[in-house]
Amino acid sequence: MKIALAQLNYHIGNFESNTQKIIDTIGKAAMQGAELVVFAELSIGGYPAQDFLEFEDFIDCCEQSLQFIADTCQDAACIIGAPIRNKGEKGKPLFNAAVFCFKGKMQFFRKSLLPNYDVFDEYRYFEPAKTFEILHFKGKKIALTICEDIWDVGNSRLYTINPMEELIDHQPDLMINIAASPFNYNQANRRLEVLRANVERYNLPLIYVNQVGAQTELLFDGGSLFFAADGHVVEHLPFFEEALSVVETNTFEQQKSNKRSPFITGKIELIHDALVMGIRDYFKKLGFKQAILGLSGGIDSAVTMALASKALGPENVFGLLMPSQFSSHHSVEDAIELAKNLGSPYNIIKIKDLFDQFDYNLKPVFKSKPFDLTEENIQARIRGVLLMAMSNKFGYILLNTSNKSEAAVGYGTLYGDMNGGLSVLGDVYKTDVFLLAHYINREKEIIPESTIIKPPSAELRPDQKDSDSLPEYDILDQILYQYIELRKGPKELISMGFNEKMVNRILKMVNTTEYKRKQTPPILRISPKAFGMGRRMPIVAKYLS
Amino acid sequence: MKIALAQLNYHIGNFESNTQKIIDTIGKAAMQGAELVVFAELSIGGYPAQDFLEFEDFIDCCEQSLQFIADTCQDAACIIGAPIRNKGEKGKPLFNAAVFCFKGKMQFFRKSLLPNYDVFDEYRYFEPAKTFEILHFKGKKIALTICEDIWDVGNSRLYTINPMEELIDHQPDLMINIAASPFNYNQANRRLEVLRANVERYNLPLIYVNQVGAQTELLFDGGSLFFAADGHVVEHLPFFEEALSVVETNTFEQQKSNKRSPFITGKIELIHDALVMGIRDYFKKLGFKQAILGLSGGIDSAVTMALASKALGPENVFGLLMPSQFSSHHSVEDAIELAKNLGSPYNIIKIKDLFDQFDYNLKPVFKSKPFDLTEENIQARIRGVLLMAMSNKFGYILLNTSNKSEAAVGYGTLYGDMNGGLSVLGDVYKTDVFLLAHYINREKEIIPESTIIKPPSAELRPDQKDSDSLPEYDILDQILYQYIELRKGPKELISMGFNEKMVNRILKMVNTTEYKRKQTPPILRISPKAFGMGRRMPIVAKYLS
Repeated sequence: MKIALAQLNYHIGNFESNTQKIIDTIGKAAMQGAELVVFAELSIGGYPAQDFLEFEDFIDCCEQSLQFIADTCQDAACIIGAPIRNKGEKGKPLFNAAVFCFKGKMQFFRKSLLPNYDVFDEYRYFEPAKTFEILHFKGKKIALTICEDIWDVGNSRLYTINPMEELIDHQPDLMINIAASPFNYNQANRRLEVLRANVERYNLPLIYVNQVGAQTELLFDGGSLFFAADGHVVEHLPFFEEALSVVETNTFEQQKSNKRSPFITGKIELIHDALVMGIRDYFKKLGFKQAILGLSGGIDSAVTMALASKALGPENVFGLLMPSQFSSHHSVEDAIELAKNLGSPYNIIKIKDLFDQFDYNLKPVFKSKPFDLTEENIQARIRGVLLMAMSNKFGYILLNTSNKSEAAVGYGTLYGDMNGGLSVLGDVYKTDVFLLAHYINREKEIIPESTIIKPPSAELRPDQKDSDSLPEYDILDQILYQYIELRKGPKELISMGFNEKMVNRILKMVNTTEYKRKQTPPILRISPKAFGMGRRMPIVAKYLS
Repeated sequence: MKIALAQLNYHIGNFESNTQKIIDTIGKAAMQGAELVVFAELSIGGYPAQDFLEFEDFIDCCEQSLQFIADTCQDAACIIGAPIRNKGEKGKPLFNAAVFCFKGKMQFFRKSLLPNYDVFDEYRYFEPAKTFEILHFKGKKIALTICEDIWDVGNSRLYTINPMEELIDHQPDLMINIAASPFNYNQANRRLEVLRANVERYNLPLIYVNQVGAQTELLFDGGSLFFAADGHVVEHLPFFEEALSVVETNTFEQQKSNKRSPFITGKIELIHDALVMGIRDYFKKLGFKQAILGLSGGIDSAVTMALASKALGPENVFGLLMPSQFSSHHSVEDAIELAKNLGSPYNIIKIKDLFDQFDYNLKPVFKSKPFDLTEENIQARIRGVLLMAMSNKFGYILLNTSNKSEAAVGYGTLYGDMNGGLSVLGDVYKTDVFLLAHYINREKEIIPESTIIKPPSAELRPDQKDSDSLPEYDILDQILYQYIELRKGPKELISMGFNEKMVNRILKMVNTTEYKRKQTPPILRISPKAFGMGRRMPIVAKYLS
């Protein structure tokens, strides 16, 4: 059977454009001889549609799109993910379904294993399936599952049901799994392992179709695959872009040596490509073209600007330099050099007179209180006002340049440098920001060398260095990783050899600055545990703090 | 049997203080003759502890507290809510349990119905119980359940199991339900209905213990109850405060006429009391005493200041007036009168010269572009900088004064008037803000009459009125309520008689300003559907927008 893998980028709630794209793809695949076209999980409506799924009108729109697509499937059938109503008397109002559409008719296959951890909230909307059916098409029996359904390969304690164990009794000829599996830098390798484990366990070929593209903080890398029954990869679609490929499933035995497993690049390159896609889609799907960011001469804004230039074109990324009396001369030079290297527009607005005016206006209230964090924050907030003014006047989206290390310990000013429509580096530890800078410079110097080698500083008071108030980043990032990604407690951290006082101080900083992270822009998620929808912490609490 | 209802206010993760409070309460109850002391759901660790529940160290702390409490229970036993480890091979790592503690021993009763909607995420952490046991104590059989377990009184489609239907087969003598049931203005009446329905269905007395106090956005009103088997309320604890009461469950037949159902006040009084508690606990649990807010002379800041004065004492609420060239004279007068009526400190910082300085610095970039929303936002953001400067210098927490109508349609400036540590009115529609103002003035004029009667205006350009860009609030709020609380779609709204163009425009405003709400402070939740953890929407989407 000729089956098309359709790896598309959807726009949540944009029924018109999604439906058109799906129909065009079915047409294109049919032209290439496809008898069945496979789309990703919850393509109809987009994933994650979150609480839009609770609106009857939204589900009506999904049903209309689905019927329209089913009516269009005359030459080729399709399998597509959609939320469908639970018409039973009990349970959540929806199922997460794979819908088989052909000549106006539909057949529904329901997801059983519903992830409800980290960024996933599927129990919020969906009822898990408890019965399992085989799809019969063109004389073949297809075991059709949805994403998590095949992730329990014997080592998960979460689930008591294994859908493939149920389906295998029907002696299927082929497995198809449709997915919306968000990216993190470990995910492509992990996914390959899980898919291969299924192929090896059931000795069946497997077609896996994932969505691609960014949905605010969640990034989807695609990487759809066709495995032969012997575990060889017959076809793999690219990462981070839309693709369509038609495969012949009856003759794959001969094809098995044609292809090897997809080449999965190293962590930093993956992060780079994911962030570029994340920026591009955020702008495109919101209907914006141009970005602005504050250029300090430091490494975070430099890396952010380079990534944004890659995503939007350098001409569409505006760098604003806002030196204060504490900014070093080389910072301004480095920032200008960066903009010139990229070919991006920039401008300079000095902030000293604005700072002086605030100082003057606050004097009657502050009286003779000494310069402290207040005045540092005022500088950061003046910059925030200027950047937002530019954003408002010219229709730029402000990019936030904070990294994960800073976001973790609250080293940043709310309503100042924490502003932005999107945080590009908020899930990238400072040590990885350095690696990204080197990666960006791999062919020629884009980010000035002096930006990379100078000691990090906020330059908000004379001779300030990050290391005045924070541990060195290589130590800090290790502790943060253990605490945030691995959820290790203080006892475990100390037993690993980290200094007790430092551990307690850092965990306290993380836990007492939850209130700041509540108000940050959405953060592009590249790790298994990012700040954002996948990490939900109380703001008012007293634990390790 | 003498049973104590212990309605306490917990601090999430503050094991030391919670445990001490629980032990003190057991001692106090035992002194009053109690044989059993009943605490709320998840008292150990606090509710909602959210992702702290994923930290082994946090669960270790819970276990230690629990053992310590069990060891203390020598004269009286207790029932207390705690997360406990799932030692089975399958399922989520925790159960949400009611733990019976006596003389160092513990017996565990597990929650079966796990809410996973709106503000609830219980499937994220907990495995549902599938077996049910009776608690035997002092010759009595107690049917012990946890919150949602008894909420399925025959009309919910969510659940297929009904724990009380299982437990009733053991012929219990008494029902006890421990809860962490968050407030909204409908909840006290609804809860009374549900509890009474259980009493009537099983013809058993019922002890219900809820927690009290604010946990960031979630407010808990207490209102614990003891029902006689005939449906009469024998004892009810107050709303919005801690309380301890010992009841005799063997003789309640005679007591049934002693008390009537708790008096539940009207919606506006409930909201008032809930918000006051919400402000008080936010400050107390964070270790802060003083608040600041921007006083515009408008009704939102006036109501916020009055509520904060009630919560923290008027001397602890600082009002900052920041008139611009567009502020009317009466606005300043009204704001001063309000501060004087309350007895709160205030000060004035004019912003015209700051605005002029921004104008001057931006001129080379803006060139001759006309005054637009940019300049309106600059004024709001200057105020944001001044308020945060005061907050930083003096240790005030900034209170946000935006109401729900504004938050819904995005009528507010990010990093300007949307700033704050806590949003007091973000779940209160403008029409209800007016009712709150009248309620605050019920005995004497605190909020100046002219603040209440003048047409709402942001005063960011000459002669501006809210109604220039928004429909009148009585219409706007009706449409917002139908869309946000009831999740009606545009077709339904139009069929209710609302103007089509207006409906489409308002829904578009709501959906396109999700990015602003992503970055707002936590909002005290008083409605069944508040912006915040209970309403999760994609930022990048194209639905009704």
